[in-house]
Amino acid sequence: MNTVANHSADGLWSGLRFAPGSLDGVADALRADALVVARGAIAWVGALAELPAAHAGLPRHAGGGALVTPGLVDCHTHLVYGGQRAGEFAMRLAGASYEQVAQAGGGIVSTVRATREASEDELFASASARLQNLLAEGVCAVEIKSGYGLALEHERKQLRVARRLAQAHGVTVRATFLGAHALPPEYAGRSGDYIRLVCEEVLPALHAEGLVDAVDVFCERIAFSLDETEQVFQAAQRLGLPVKLHAEQLSDMDGARLAARYGALSCDHIEHLSQAGIDAMRDAGTVAVLLPGAYYTLRDTQLPPIAGLRAAGVPMAVSTDHNPGTSPCLSLLLMVNMACTLFRLTVPEAIAGVTVHAARALGLQETHGAIGVGRPANFVLWDLRDVEEMAYWFGGRGVLGVVRSGGVYGFSA
Amino acid sequence: MNTVANHSADGLWSGLRFAPGSLDGVADALRADALVVARGAIAWVGALAELPAAHAGLPRHAGGGALVTPGLVDCHTHLVYGGQRAGEFAMRLAGASYEQVAQAGGGIVSTVRATREASEDELFASASARLQNLLAEGVCAVEIKSGYGLALEHERKQLRVARRLAQAHGVTVRATFLGAHALPPEYAGRSGDYIRLVCEEVLPALHAEGLVDAVDVFCERIAFSLDETEQVFQAAQRLGLPVKLHAEQLSDMDGARLAARYGALSCDHIEHLSQAGIDAMRDAGTVAVLLPGAYYTLRDTQLPPIAGLRAAGVPMAVSTDHNPGTSPCLSLLLMVNMACTLFRLTVPEAIAGVTVHAARALGLQETHGAIGVGRPANFVLWDLRDVEEMAYWFGGRGVLGVVRSGGVYGFSA
Ligand SMILES: [Zn+2]
Ligand SMILES: [Zn+2]
Repeated sequence: MNTVANHSADGLWSGLRFAPGSLDGVADALRADALVVARGAIAWVGALAELPAAHAGLPRHAGGGALVTPGLVDCHTHLVYGGQRAGEFAMRLAGASYEQVAQAGGGIVSTVRATREASEDELFASASARLQNLLAEGVCAVEIKSGYGLALEHERKQLRVARRLAQAHGVTVRATFLGAHALPPEYAGRSGDYIRLVCEEVLPALHAEGLVDAVDVFCERIAFSLDETEQVFQAAQRLGLPVKLHAEQLSDMDGARLAARYGALSCDHIEHLSQAGIDAMRDAGTVAVLLPGAYYTLRDTQLPPIAGLRAAGVPMAVSTDHNPGTSPCLSLLLMVNMACTLFRLTVPEAIAGVTVHAARALGLQETHGAIGVGRPANFVLWDLRDVEEMAYWFGGRGVLGVVRSGGVYGFSA
Repeated sequence: MNTVANHSADGLWSGLRFAPGSLDGVADALRADALVVARGAIAWVGALAELPAAHAGLPRHAGGGALVTPGLVDCHTHLVYGGQRAGEFAMRLAGASYEQVAQAGGGIVSTVRATREASEDELFASASARLQNLLAEGVCAVEIKSGYGLALEHERKQLRVARRLAQAHGVTVRATFLGAHALPPEYAGRSGDYIRLVCEEVLPALHAEGLVDAVDVFCERIAFSLDETEQVFQAAQRLGLPVKLHAEQLSDMDGARLAARYGALSCDHIEHLSQAGIDAMRDAGTVAVLLPGAYYTLRDTQLPPIAGLRAAGVPMAVSTDHNPGTSPCLSLLLMVNMACTLFRLTVPEAIAGVTVHAARALGLQETHGAIGVGRPANFVLWDLRDVEEMAYWFGGRGVLGVVRSGGVYGFSA
């Protein structure tokens, strides 16, 4: 499972078969079969036969005709948390009611408690192990949300772990503040007070420490109202931070229109998204993030409005939504299959969903989700004939090797 | 992802946490934390503190407190075939009708053609790559069916590859003859003639070559009738071969009762199984093989009668049904999660489904699916706290190492 043999990717890579749509700004994309990496960035992409003299004599890496895609982007995860909820999963299957699960200490409250009780090092260790699964599949950028601390010191702990994961694993991490994920037990019945705390103290403090790349809210009847959501968006706006929204998962809260008004990077889940919401997202350039792992785990039957999003031209991303309650999912590649099988995305849509559109959902479209000159060297070599196979097989891997942040990660033979 | 470092497992293994239900014939199972492997078989299981003097001084393997289960058993696969159908998968998603897919050369006919055109070495290479995915998860025994050759020489080719896979990978393989999988094109409209060929020529010849461990039939309106199924069962009975059945997948054909009359090892799929079928299976000791990967891929909504099987005490196995059309699934562990999530099996049921009950579905209950003295050394060390985690996470692995046929397979760190 572990990646090994991290050495520099600098040099000439030849024998590559670039997947359709993976190149950005390359004039003759169809004939391209090689690229040059210099100091961790892509310096040239093209046909080997036309390699500029300036790049002759570089160290060579043989691609062997492998299919190549951009590094994958997992744009919606809650990867850092204490404990896990396997026991609760088993109890439910054995017939326990929600009440019994709650009495046994289950539910999100148990994750909040375990996250608060865990040290930063413990959170780092458990999240690292989970992250390894994603990295082994070729994920080169991942979003990680806070939202299980729900108090300044614990939200800080989660976000600091997100920053440490980036350092330790040479992976791009976008840290999203999701203080408005759930109402912490000590604020029961005082939702307004908690939102004020989030807006006036927690977010500004964490922003000042450089820990926040974006701000997210869970807008839902069981979480925060549209008004509360807007208060958090306003706080983010004051700090110049982009926003995202857990929107219309269980009901149509009209959150997508609000998010679009604030120029949100993405609206996520959106099973109950209305046509008005779709139109607003299109106008704002907001990405629709589809989360088939949660849909699967919850045995949901309400599909997101894929046809409407497609017709409007709203970019669709696909992500694991990794979290301990509704999507303990450790494979973005499996989400590609589920996006096709359960949501009926086409294969090109699903692949764009974990590359170019996922990068856009994180504001990383200039650097991630595509292969092009000037971008960091993030790409994946696959032991597959074509991208159709990326979506078709499920439960396998099929990765030959990964170039991430200019380092080469392969699996021992 | 390839397994490496194959060395002998002989010696004393300590620091093991045996999963509930994994030991067979061990008096004090709760206290057991060690075992001895001698010449590839388990020679002793118990508490290290009570290690018999005869086993002192053996080479030692440290389990490090790992959770241990029996080697997994994948009891229903069609792993050996030519080509794959990723293109067809993509076409369907892009809106092609079944007719258009067929015109483009898709469907089972395309797999039959590709299997006939492939050499034995080609079939071996592609099946080996797929098998590696299962082995990496701890699969120690796998059933492989013929049924894409549909002519003596091509069915032989598939079954010979099954035998070679066992040799090459040190894994137990049960080879099942499924000549009555589909009507080959050259017999269109002459189903009776084809069944006669299967019963009088193909099966006896392959049996004489030692290539057949069991006989299976696809009994369905789109495949073979109940009468034709019984003809094949009679041919198997004449040769002393056990039978299995693809039963009641799309409709209730009353196949399970027929299979039970022939003492079938298993009835597989069984989405439309009746109570009479359940009762007959219970009386015959026939295993119910559940295949959530096909259910998922086909977006089926008809669940197998789990409650009825449970109430009757029919053993339930869980398998990948790996095949290129309806379940291109490369993970038995994912099927454990799907059996829980989609079929609502409890965690212990799902784990038994890929160990003890899966072994029984192959007639391997004396040697596989449990850890006990005299059995071959097949067990898995997991990087997990408990079996609940085996079912809870999905898309990951979590295997520390595998002991298979007395050899140690680990992943480089
Ligand atoms: Zn989420
Ligand atoms: Zn089958």
